[in-house]
Amino acid sequence: MTDIAMIEAARARLAGQARRTPILSSPFLDEIAGRRVFVKPECLQHTGSFKFRGAWSAISALDPVVRARGVIAFSSGNHAQGVALAARMHGIPAVIIMPFDAPRIKIENTKAYGAEVVLYDRANEDRDAIGARLSQERQLTLIKPYDEPLVIAGQGTTGLEIAEQAAELGITQAEVLVPTGGGGFASGIALSLAAKAPGLTVRPCEPQGFDDVARSLASGKRERNPHQAGSLCDAIVTPQPGEITFPIMAKLCGEGLVVTDDEALHAVALAFNRLKIVVEPGGAVALAAALFRGSELDGDVIAVCSGGNIDADILRMALDRHPV
Amino acid sequence: MTDIAMIEAARARLAGQARRTPILSSPFLDEIAGRRVFVKPECLQHTGSFKFRGAWSAISALDPVVRARGVIAFSSGNHAQGVALAARMHGIPAVIIMPFDAPRIKIENTKAYGAEVVLYDRANEDRDAIGARLSQERQLTLIKPYDEPLVIAGQGTTGLEIAEQAAELGITQAEVLVPTGGGGFASGIALSLAAKAPGLTVRPCEPQGFDDVARSLASGKRERNPHQAGSLCDAIVTPQPGEITFPIMAKLCGEGLVVTDDEALHAVALAFNRLKIVVEPGGAVALAAALFRGSELDGDVIAVCSGGNIDADILRMALDRHPV
Repeated sequence: MTDIAMIEAARARLAGQARRTPILSSPFLDEIAGRRVFVKPECLQHTGSFKFRGAWSAISALDPVVRARGVIAFSSGNHAQGVALAARMHGIPAVIIMPFDAPRIKIENTKAYGAEVVLYDRANEDRDAIGARLSQERQLTLIKPYDEPLVIAGQGTTGLEIAEQAAELGITQAEVLVPTGGGGFASGIALSLAAKAPGLTVRPCEPQGFDDVARSLASGKRERNPHQAGSLCDAIVTPQPGEITFPIMAKLCGEGLVVTDDEALHAVALAFNRLKIVVEPGGAVALAAALFRGSELDGDVIAVCSGGNIDADILRMALDRHPV
Repeated sequence: MTDIAMIEAARARLAGQARRTPILSSPFLDEIAGRRVFVKPECLQHTGSFKFRGAWSAISALDPVVRARGVIAFSSGNHAQGVALAARMHGIPAVIIMPFDAPRIKIENTKAYGAEVVLYDRANEDRDAIGARLSQERQLTLIKPYDEPLVIAGQGTTGLEIAEQAAELGITQAEVLVPTGGGGFASGIALSLAAKAPGLTVRPCEPQGFDDVARSLASGKRERNPHQAGSLCDAIVTPQPGEITFPIMAKLCGEGLVVTDDEALHAVALAFNRLKIVVEPGGAVALAAALFRGSELDGDVIAVCSGGNIDADILRMALDRHPV
């Protein structure tokens, strides 16, 4: 099980590989939110999302003989790119199984990072069967996107940075808003903060209609989403919270926050105009919650922008709907 | 005259106020350039450009009694915003004289930062006369955009960071490409690098048709641009190199690099897609030179992206013309 020692070990393996992303802010955002809003832009991480941290953490911890045979992952995009680049940097093959309707930029980037991409049809094909066959044939190690202690530890290194950066800013109490799909990022950050900055509490953030984590935290058991696709926030749509991640979130996180797709797009436009960063809708749900769910928040907030792999058309839509 | 001690003093005054921007990179950009390209994104600085550094440096060094009466500046945009925010953070009034055809976002932001904006017509009005009258009437201190030792010192703090970050990356020899208008940024960075990282050489970068610095470095005397407007790279269009900045550049910088407006737009699109940062055309000329002027470069490059205050329409044009 992931603990702070495992996260610190992941950080040592990530040293010189992952970027320490800065903390950004804007008086314009503070004014909208009516509170101080700090932003941790993991869209500036290698491959454009925090997923590189978990991928590197897991791959770097493998036995070298096992690792050399290669890795396999299922992903609609950001985990795919993180695994592909981390594998390439280790000089090992990577096979990524992606839905054919994943954002084009994510599929193309995954290929460009050197991975072999196998596309499947979410509606009619069983990705697990495809993956099981390939990994058996080629002795590939599966790198799970979130329900894997080493992946959670890698994502948790973001929380170590937030704890340090909050201290530098003199912040000892704050809500840390984290875009949440399966919960690897939120649970990893929560573990780090519990150990290093106990006044900082993680609040998982999700898009409306895909709020399995918020409902699970409320009910105390793992709830499922009725649909598996259909949100602009594709990066963080998962069937239900992870088996490993959910107990961590249930113990350490505050209530979930839910925003609409349009609020996420508004946050995309504001991040563009006010912070000069490129954020995808799923990566912007925490910033959206910081700006538009003030009645559910208390005091300073630190909003994590988890990824920036947005197709140009979606960015255009965000800027059209929400001009400065 | 600005020296390394003055830059280090500026850094001390800027501590806790300016952001230490990270170093970014992308294997996609390295592939286009055929070399390692590192990017220093000053678009992530407060107000979306490096100009905040110089403004804070100058305002924070004023005698408190003089400072309390307020400051005045001439600027088409980024210096305006830097001065406006630095003045507001000091609790003093700021008057900014801007051309009425400056980018809308820059005018609106300058007002939103609390400054009084006075618009003038570049073709038919004398901005110096307007400024002289206002500063005399109200005893405002003029904060020059580049030909001012304290401003150069503030911009030079970027060079101290580059020197440290290059050392962390193991880079001891590199060309440091800097978008250049009047030369405050390039000369400040050059002074820092000469003192702290002598293997790193500044190369000023400009848009075609407004290459006064490149021509001045070639001829050895301050040359003028034939036109004062008409480039997408509005942020870095100035009549000629500064009186104070030019001798520093002539002593410390390598040859100037010149890119087309379309190459700058291409760099804007690539920065968006590959680095997840928002850069304005003038702020992207150094990245454009890194990517498209390889025959004039040697070894690793560090390209500074100096500002991100781009109107949405220009960004749309960049993405339309240069899709991934």
